[in-house]
Amino acid sequence: MNLWHIEERTFNPKKLHSCETVFSIGNGYFATRGTFEEGYPKATPGTLLAGVFDKIAIAKEELANVPDWLTIKLFVNGERFRLDHGKIFDYQRTLDMQHGILRRMVGWESPGGIRIRITSERFASLADEHVGAIRYSVTAEEQPEMGEKLDVLLWSALDMAVGNHDLLHWESVEQRRDGELLWLHSQTRHSSVKLVQTMSFTSKDCQFQKELIRSDTSPSIRIYKKLAAGETMTAEKIVVMYTSRDVEDVLQTALDHHHHILQSSASPAEPGKYYTLLVEGTRRTNPCVQVHPYETLLEEHKKAWQNYWQDSDVIIEGDDKAQQAVRYNIYQLRISAPSHDSRYSIAAKGLTGFGYRGHVFHDTEIFMLPYFTYVHPDIARNLLIYRYRLLPAARAKANSNGYDGAQYPWESTLDGKETTPPAIVHPETGELIAVLNGNLEIHITASIAHTVWQYWQVTGDNEFMREFGTEILLSTAEFWASRTEWNPESSYYEIDNVIGPDEYHEHVNNNAYTNYMARWNIQIAIHALHWLRSNAPDKAKELTQQLDLNEKRLARWHDVKAHIRIPQDKRTGLFEQFDGFFQLEPLDQEKYKGRTTSYQGILGMKVVQYYQIIKQADVLMLLTVLDQQFDFKTKKVNWDCYFPITDHDYGSSLTPALHVILACELDLVDTAYQMFMKGALVDLEDQRGNSDEGIHAACAGAVWQAAILGFAGLRFTEDGYTTTPRWPDGWTRLAFTCFQRGKQISIDLRK
Amino acid sequence: MNLWHIEERTFNPKKLHSCETVFSIGNGYFATRGTFEEGYPKATPGTLLAGVFDKIAIAKEELANVPDWLTIKLFVNGERFRLDHGKIFDYQRTLDMQHGILRRMVGWESPGGIRIRITSERFASLADEHVGAIRYSVTAEEQPEMGEKLDVLLWSALDMAVGNHDLLHWESVEQRRDGELLWLHSQTRHSSVKLVQTMSFTSKDCQFQKELIRSDTSPSIRIYKKLAAGETMTAEKIVVMYTSRDVEDVLQTALDHHHHILQSSASPAEPGKYYTLLVEGTRRTNPCVQVHPYETLLEEHKKAWQNYWQDSDVIIEGDDKAQQAVRYNIYQLRISAPSHDSRYSIAAKGLTGFGYRGHVFHDTEIFMLPYFTYVHPDIARNLLIYRYRLLPAARAKANSNGYDGAQYPWESTLDGKETTPPAIVHPETGELIAVLNGNLEIHITASIAHTVWQYWQVTGDNEFMREFGTEILLSTAEFWASRTEWNPESSYYEIDNVIGPDEYHEHVNNNAYTNYMARWNIQIAIHALHWLRSNAPDKAKELTQQLDLNEKRLARWHDVKAHIRIPQDKRTGLFEQFDGFFQLEPLDQEKYKGRTTSYQGILGMKVVQYYQIIKQADVLMLLTVLDQQFDFKTKKVNWDCYFPITDHDYGSSLTPALHVILACELDLVDTAYQMFMKGALVDLEDQRGNSDEGIHAACAGAVWQAAILGFAGLRFTEDGYTTTPRWPDGWTRLAFTCFQRGKQISIDLRK
Repeated sequence: MNLWHIEERTFNPKKLHSCETVFSIGNGYFATRGTFEEGYPKATPGTLLAGVFDKIAIAKEELANVPDWLTIKLFVNGERFRLDHGKIFDYQRTLDMQHGILRRMVGWESPGGIRIRITSERFASLADEHVGAIRYSVTAEEQPEMGEKLDVLLWSALDMAVGNHDLLHWESVEQRRDGELLWLHSQTRHSSVKLVQTMSFTSKDCQFQKELIRSDTSPSIRIYKKLAAGETMTAEKIVVMYTSRDVEDVLQTALDHHHHILQSSASPAEPGKYYTLLVEGTRRTNPCVQVHPYETLLEEHKKAWQNYWQDSDVIIEGDDKAQQAVRYNIYQLRISAPSHDSRYSIAAKGLTGFGYRGHVFHDTEIFMLPYFTYVHPDIARNLLIYRYRLLPAARAKANSNGYDGAQYPWESTLDGKETTPPAIVHPETGELIAVLNGNLEIHITASIAHTVWQYWQVTGDNEFMREFGTEILLSTAEFWASRTEWNPESSYYEIDNVIGPDEYHEHVNNNAYTNYMARWNIQIAIHALHWLRSNAPDKAKELTQQLDLNEKRLARWHDVKAHIRIPQDKRTGLFEQFDGFFQLEPLDQEKYKGRTTSYQGILGMKVVQYYQIIKQADVLMLLTVLDQQFDFKTKKVNWDCYFPITDHDYGSSLTPALHVILACELDLVDTAYQMFMKGALVDLEDQRGNSDEGIHAACAGAVWQAAILGFAGLRFTEDGYTTTPRWPDGWTRLAFTCFQRGKQISIDLRK
Repeated sequence: MNLWHIEERTFNPKKLHSCETVFSIGNGYFATRGTFEEGYPKATPGTLLAGVFDKIAIAKEELANVPDWLTIKLFVNGERFRLDHGKIFDYQRTLDMQHGILRRMVGWESPGGIRIRITSERFASLADEHVGAIRYSVTAEEQPEMGEKLDVLLWSALDMAVGNHDLLHWESVEQRRDGELLWLHSQTRHSSVKLVQTMSFTSKDCQFQKELIRSDTSPSIRIYKKLAAGETMTAEKIVVMYTSRDVEDVLQTALDHHHHILQSSASPAEPGKYYTLLVEGTRRTNPCVQVHPYETLLEEHKKAWQNYWQDSDVIIEGDDKAQQAVRYNIYQLRISAPSHDSRYSIAAKGLTGFGYRGHVFHDTEIFMLPYFTYVHPDIARNLLIYRYRLLPAARAKANSNGYDGAQYPWESTLDGKETTPPAIVHPETGELIAVLNGNLEIHITASIAHTVWQYWQVTGDNEFMREFGTEILLSTAEFWASRTEWNPESSYYEIDNVIGPDEYHEHVNNNAYTNYMARWNIQIAIHALHWLRSNAPDKAKELTQQLDLNEKRLARWHDVKAHIRIPQDKRTGLFEQFDGFFQLEPLDQEKYKGRTTSYQGILGMKVVQYYQIIKQADVLMLLTVLDQQFDFKTKKVNWDCYFPITDHDYGSSLTPALHVILACELDLVDTAYQMFMKGALVDLEDQRGNSDEGIHAACAGAVWQAAILGFAGLRFTEDGYTTTPRWPDGWTRLAFTCFQRGKQISIDLRK
């Protein structure tokens, strides 16, 4: 068992779509689902580029699946290779996470009885993020039936006839040839993003004919070759992609980039060797110039992944499955994270599927950001600057709701407008279901503020705090100050009519998470303002003016901070999730044993609200996120109350791994391990049956948190870090690397 | 001015989409929008096949735009011909309605200064409905700049990268070559309809190279040729289409059909003449066999159109615009009507656009069917058998609403389930707007019953009435009997909570049209049952049993017929559109002069309901549909009340032309003429700004009714027909043909 490999040993058509997700490759600029080069019925090829959106109905915009760059079709003696034809006598697909490479080997017998082996290898270059590459080989098996040589046709294409499922986003603008490159210029149908893809398809061997075929919808380069028994042919496809989000002259940049790649790998023509080139009805005989860019690109790419893992790997010894899975989640965090672009963040499904349409939720801040803050602070910084860029829209949202300050949208894309769809269509009944989260799930604003604070604490990035962070904290604090309402009866500031993190209960009042985090937001904003006044008085003055932080406002902040309703039993420490939660009916979960869907699915959204059953951590998330604010007893009493009534199996993928941190603190190591594996394997085992829509990116982030903040028990303090390891059965070593205040720390724990 | 031609003399990109609709060709099996062969940015190519649906969200299913068969790309010395590049120095597009042919001639100067002329001609064969054909010619203009011959490349393709706007419906299944044919087998993504399209691309001339290029998304046949100044090259594209709705072995049938077309037009090889054929990397020199199927197909097609016009033409002398327009509407009625398929009917937009998604409304029965009943009773019969086939679903709908009998859906497709979307998305705001018509607009059931009756009266088709018609009448009558409720206070049977034909008022009680038509439905059902008992007692017995038409039920029918509330002032004859209509506020229309949208658009759906303003004929539709039930006085008083408060400009396209009949009866010939032209030109002049979504098929039917039942005043009686011509200014002759009881009658009226 290679602990860097995810392997599939037999092809199961039923897992087609979830495996397309699992075997995604990517580099943060783009990711590509693990569809087969040759296609398969009902396949969902997908290549999503960070921040490349097109407009849609209802949910406003979605990442627009670009023309498929994977296509390589293979014909042998006229028979088409595809896994739904003929016989598969050998099969292996491997995701090499260490090097970010997807490989497949297929032994295939055609319906006509010809036996061949196909191996393909692909990567999305981590060293050169505009580049995707495929090496494709065909070997003729020794076979009695085969008299003459096999006629092999390999045909590499860019394919416009793909959408986000059925939704087409691109229109072909122009398609041309440039030497032996073909390029395709397309444009999103509504948002007018320009995309240029250039393609080359080369072979080291010269004994072939090559044909370049223009087409607006499927330009292709075809290699015709005779293959003797035992012989192998190999061709290499390189695709370069640029969009109008990157550069002005998209076409020229892409062409220059691609030519540069080819030229830098070209060796002089071999004397006496020629190949035939067919172009638009003409036939030319060209001297055989060896161009093999693949190897060079591959080496650079592998080096980049090695660098990544040097900082990012989490070593678990004594539990191979956990080791593999934790690496898989760290792999996923990388391939979907734009590494030097602060105009877009990480979507709920990363760049690996069409679910949630590329929209950004609190998933990024609460679940994924800690990984980046601790391990890749430069990426974390960009992710937070994304939120800074959204401030104008967040202010507009607050304003349109009658509040001051900045209210972040529940779902956002590029401009920060609320993109939560007002309703969704039930996939089976076609019924329209109202989605209230865009209006009511307001806690995200405090969560973002908190992670700004956390980033600052861990990294000590004062420049960020001065230029971006403080403004976020002050603007969000002001939102909360205006959002709370004084209730003269209770003598508290209250926050009514919200959805807390637990989405099974809508229109609730005084949600513990929301109110506590709102107070925290105000508190850290006050701290930040003090700090700014001491350390950057000009900037403090500027912000004070700009945000009109007069005495009256600040007095209100202090008042709200002091008198906001926190629904907690002071004596026991038990939080009530929201006003009246403990008056709801308990749910007899025994009755639903063996269920295969969520309680919402079973009871319906209306009825589930009557019960003390919760979709995902709410109070427990508070205790985890603000871990250091609560003592053991408080954690224990709330855990005992809320853990048993959470829909761990089908509620939300977000929280199983997140529960681990608390479970570890409470020394519930077995439970922690169960939760950890539930999170770590969510996509690898398609545990929720929806991995076809893309990976669970928040869960991937939570898995890292579970390992490091949970099992290793890492905590940073002013004086340095502490660890409090808890060892699940069999674990003997837990090693990882992280940063604190610019200093990289390697931690190697052994039982 | 050719009165058979619709002409466009300059190309206006702003009219791109509405002209695509206007210049549609079709034969009832399929229709194809008038997009350019070479493409244009944001073009919406569309070929819809009758009854070929794919599933969609919310609105259940829609006609699925098939892979585009029009594509022919042209390159001259490497420069791409497209109207958004270079200069247009000559342009003419002509729809020859007499022969169902669309022609275009373009004089074009490339950005590089090369001048060429392109002429293309296309048709959807009316003689052989699986066939589409294009003849495409390029002429090199005499030009000083041109030194050597021009390199011309013509590339003909089938293109998968098209959708219904952005929605992809087809997946490529297989694509192959068969001799010099290419075929593409695709399948709808959700409903699994198989489609095979075969393509040939031939030229009479032999001085060319021809290349056949396989592709799953865009198979193409390319012709390369050198063109001297003054020389012309011509190529002919033939496409054959079959689906799994037609035959079992779709592929073989299509191939056989196509080969037959080619073989029957092949002449022997010319000695000493050869052309070069490039196929998958090989180059062959083939003897030049002259294949020119286009001419033969064209001749048969023209003959079929001539036959059509022989029966269908309406001659108007003295008003060229009216003449042309009336022909255009009759042309449209033909191209969208399946001529020998009773499994599908005619959609609101025919087969010419994506609006209303190919769903069938009462538009067919009330507006279009009279044309077919009078002029093409065989087609009318199929359209009614379509409704007969829907009876099981209509019974299920009645049942699910708690009623007996059969309740037709407001919108239907293949299986008769209600396909009205529960809501639509506002195109600008993205807001969801509830659509109540599927639940409330119930008058369609009576309208269908009425047109069954009307068909029988006009055609005397007793066999239809016995096998299909009576069952429809009885089943719908039973629906009404169960739908009405006895109101002891008023001592009437009432029908509450409906939408009448006027869709500006929802949840109304006792809509005059609905209640009157319900009574009429019961009345004609009783008649039909009597007739059946006398003429086909076995069938009558069978139906009586099957529908459980016991004495109690029939007694209820009689009782409802006698005591249903008809909101009419007995003294004056004035109907009240529904209970309380006259209590609504009058609307001062003067205030809205110059408006460019409907009152609903201006006031909002909620507010428009408070006013005495109506979207479309409601009471007046009743007086038109049941014309012979009302006297002059009644018509006059209702006209004077309702005509002025109808939103003729932006309410509904359905009724302007329909108002003509009543206006003629009331001798308001000027008004009648205004209304007539408003209807006749609705698409030709894109008067409502929405012709891009497809033609207004109901309006086309109403235009025919306006001419024949309005201006000619045709009425059938037991003893024959009468005419009462009214002559708009300038009209000197009105001639047409129609059937009565199997007998064709030619009527030629002269002023």
